[in-house]
Amino acid sequence: MEKTLSELAEFLGGELKGDGTLRLSGVAGLDEAKECHISFLANPKYAAKVATTAAGGVLLPPGGESHGKNAIYLANPYLGFAKLVTLFYVHPPQVKGIMPGAFVGATVSLGTDVTIYPGAFVGDGVTLGDRVVLFPGAAVYDGAVIGSDTILHANVSVRERCRIGSRVTIHNGTVVGSDGFGYALDGEAHYKIPQVGIVVIEDDVEIGANSTIDRAALGVTLIRRGAKIDNLVQIAHNCVIGPHCVIVSQVGVSGSTKLGKYVTLGGQVGVAGHLEIGDRVMVGAKSGIHNDIPAGEVYSGYPAMPHKQWLKAAMITPKIPEMRRSIMALEKRFKELEARLSASKED
Amino acid sequence: MEKTLSELAEFLGGELKGDGTLRLSGVAGLDEAKECHISFLANPKYAAKVATTAAGGVLLPPGGESHGKNAIYLANPYLGFAKLVTLFYVHPPQVKGIMPGAFVGATVSLGTDVTIYPGAFVGDGVTLGDRVVLFPGAAVYDGAVIGSDTILHANVSVRERCRIGSRVTIHNGTVVGSDGFGYALDGEAHYKIPQVGIVVIEDDVEIGANSTIDRAALGVTLIRRGAKIDNLVQIAHNCVIGPHCVIVSQVGVSGSTKLGKYVTLGGQVGVAGHLEIGDRVMVGAKSGIHNDIPAGEVYSGYPAMPHKQWLKAAMITPKIPEMRRSIMALEKRFKELEARLSASKED
Amino acid sequence: MEKTLSELAEFLGGELKGDGTLRLSGVAGLDEAKECHISFLANPKYAAKVATTAAGGVLLPPGGESHGKNAIYLANPYLGFAKLVTLFYVHPPQVKGIMPGAFVGATVSLGTDVTIYPGAFVGDGVTLGDRVVLFPGAAVYDGAVIGSDTILHANVSVRERCRIGSRVTIHNGTVVGSDGFGYALDGEAHYKIPQVGIVVIEDDVEIGANSTIDRAALGVTLIRRGAKIDNLVQIAHNCVIGPHCVIVSQVGVSGSTKLGKYVTLGGQVGVAGHLEIGDRVMVGAKSGIHNDIPAGEVYSGYPAMPHKQWLKAAMITPKIPEMRRSIMALEKRFKELEARLSASKED
Repeated sequence: MEKTLSELAEFLGGELKGDGTLRLSGVAGLDEAKECHISFLANPKYAAKVATTAAGGVLLPPGGESHGKNAIYLANPYLGFAKLVTLFYVHPPQVKGIMPGAFVGATVSLGTDVTIYPGAFVGDGVTLGDRVVLFPGAAVYDGAVIGSDTILHANVSVRERCRIGSRVTIHNGTVVGSDGFGYALDGEAHYKIPQVGIVVIEDDVEIGANSTIDRAALGVTLIRRGAKIDNLVQIAHNCVIGPHCVIVSQVGVSGSTKLGKYVTLGGQVGVAGHLEIGDRVMVGAKSGIHNDIPAGEVYSGYPAMPHKQWLKAAMITPKIPEMRRSIMALEKRFKELEARLSASKED
Repeated sequence: MEKTLSELAEFLGGELKGDGTLRLSGVAGLDEAKECHISFLANPKYAAKVATTAAGGVLLPPGGESHGKNAIYLANPYLGFAKLVTLFYVHPPQVKGIMPGAFVGATVSLGTDVTIYPGAFVGDGVTLGDRVVLFPGAAVYDGAVIGSDTILHANVSVRERCRIGSRVTIHNGTVVGSDGFGYALDGEAHYKIPQVGIVVIEDDVEIGANSTIDRAALGVTLIRRGAKIDNLVQIAHNCVIGPHCVIVSQVGVSGSTKLGKYVTLGGQVGVAGHLEIGDRVMVGAKSGIHNDIPAGEVYSGYPAMPHKQWLKAAMITPKIPEMRRSIMALEKRFKELEARLSASKED
Repeated sequence: MEKTLSELAEFLGGELKGDGTLRLSGVAGLDEAKECHISFLANPKYAAKVATTAAGGVLLPPGGESHGKNAIYLANPYLGFAKLVTLFYVHPPQVKGIMPGAFVGATVSLGTDVTIYPGAFVGDGVTLGDRVVLFPGAAVYDGAVIGSDTILHANVSVRERCRIGSRVTIHNGTVVGSDGFGYALDGEAHYKIPQVGIVVIEDDVEIGANSTIDRAALGVTLIRRGAKIDNLVQIAHNCVIGPHCVIVSQVGVSGSTKLGKYVTLGGQVGVAGHLEIGDRVMVGAKSGIHNDIPAGEVYSGYPAMPHKQWLKAAMITPKIPEMRRSIMALEKRFKELEARLSASKED
């Protein structure tokens, strides 16, 4: 596919400066781009590269220096880049129907143009929306509901009765609806609390690979619309992940914790159970959250504290041994001084 | 299914107070319950909700205030709740036999009433006990042994020659018997230590989703009876997880470490290799264990220390910068004082 | 299989001391070995066990005391052990061809002697080298390339167009080529940055179970030759993992970070994005890396610092409350002293 720079400017709603008739066929970073590519400046740190890039055109922020290059000016060049990558490289999945070797149970409701690969499994009473794609080894247990344009990659499991919205993508190996982790001590043994609730995933959610979203004990574990969850993330039973949250890789959220909207949790963060994390809270990578956090706060550390406070404490941590030596030296000097003063008094 | 309150009291061995003829059809939390439900008070914090719940009956601890509600008194209402959820909602899995699309190898020994879903794989020489269920994509490699009433969910792998007991449930995507991580440096490259041992999982164990239990280098990685392991947990080669241990999500236990019985490891804990963790030890979430821990201790932190000590240290951590300022101020005042004293002496 | 001690000495290039005609049939630890076994002393801590082992022969380091046992002396007994375990117990996988129930797409290029188990999936345009083994549920998406003697265990996913070298082993459930985690805010919602790059894994790499290696946004996520990656590890988009790196379980490496050669990351380490970690750097378990690390350094802690510094800081951390009390006591004593001095001056 080729597009002229004018066409791209119009597609993005940006302002063209330069040769609008230039034909471009792809997108690349400033370093890698050739003349057939459009590139972009997202981080001002790399502004000098605009002068040296071989790209045929560059997406620039308002006021960005074009160094004589063909440019499209727009408010958010990074978003523009994303849209052009989509335009040039992303194609709707090919509709392949129910392929030989796919397993489809009884009383299943199928939308139009579904694709079920060999080795995928659809249990009894399942509902699949239009254009759903189930890759090989995707297992949809009895009674689950999958919305339109949702894609389950290879070896994803969706357990019994869970409900997934439309335009959801779930990457390989992720598990939706495994049992929550709950036991009551019964004499010497752990008696299992049956986990009879479900998981509900709303529209436009994306979940990475090998993550696990546990079903509720009773009721619902809820992933709200537009939330984005990375790889190897654990969401425990009865959690609510608010709309448009961003949960980075290897985060663990314990049972019954509720996240507001637009919460960002950095990689490897752990959140204890039964907490409330307010809207737009941001938590630094590897932090451990033991308490509620009010809306809008930025937290870091283990245990977590306001980010600025943590930055100061973290910077001084390597100096703790030196601090201890200072304290001991002060105590010694002080003792000597007191001894000296007593002695001089007795003089 | 409906049960009278009398029947439920008898089933639980509790003491009925109220209308024993009331017919109930399910279990729900105090907030969500309707008249057809039985609810429960497990946490005294919520005692006031007993007055306002719409539940037809409530499980109460000895001496709990019933606020005029129908009640069943018993020592552990949370356990009673678990048992009633089991009674009302949990049904033995349907026996489906070897379904079309299931792959069963040669010289396999099958118990009675097994269920093997399409896409599940049973290698050569495998033994499956009675009523075993293998969901789609469960892969049991050659020579493995699976005990009676054990359930392997979709996309679980049990590697060659591993042995799993009875009444074990393994949730989706979990891997039992992958190679332990061991290499010896051979000149410039890492030479693999072949991992020729196995994993043995005893009876009544439950393992969550996407966890990994590595096979031993030589000998056995052992998960003892009644242990409960959550999602995304890593158990390395040659570990022993003692009876009735509770291992929360995203924990990692390094090679050859041995846990006693009833050990609890909180979420995201890491335990170094070749350690001994005593009976009934509890470790707080996100802790890092570098040393043995004697039986009965409670530890937290990174590196871990007795929990009470950690609580104090953690509370003061945000104040470290302030402490440093105090030390520097003291040093300055001290220097000034010494100067002043020297001066006054010279007077 | 049986081998004489002479044959083993010759195979290992070691020096025999004792009865070279003794026939041995396996390898075992010093404690577990019987007369038919050869054992080894890798850790000098266990030297006394050489006297008491029942092993027919022992691998010893130069100058090691044999206590009258048959011995083979060699520079690295641990490596010798690994080689003997391979000799006695490791057999090349049986060639089984394309088994019934395997799914093979169109225009696939297959090497000689491949094994494709039932339930494995090979997409259109895939290339498989000689002797490749795909276990059940392994899913190789369209256009991927898999080198000779590479083994994909059950339920591994290799996504579209990714390229894997020769003699690579990937354990169960691992995902190669899932989408990197990248979004640009578009008004109220997250607009997905399409991840149109690939993953390239070079020769002689081993990856554990349930790990995730994300494909690049543009370009390549690269795992270089001989790198060893454990279970549940996350490698984000556009990372480079250098030759012969060792990445222990549950590590997370964020986007675009580059590791040199022979880097070792301990369990549960987290590395931020866009960093450079130099050759032969070692990072202690559970550390959090926020900055570049120069070649050859050893780091630990969260945030990470030079290991020796961290050891000192970590040892003193439990004493922080005591330090604070000391500071407060000093301040009090100082105030009293100043008061006393003022008073005595006024005398």
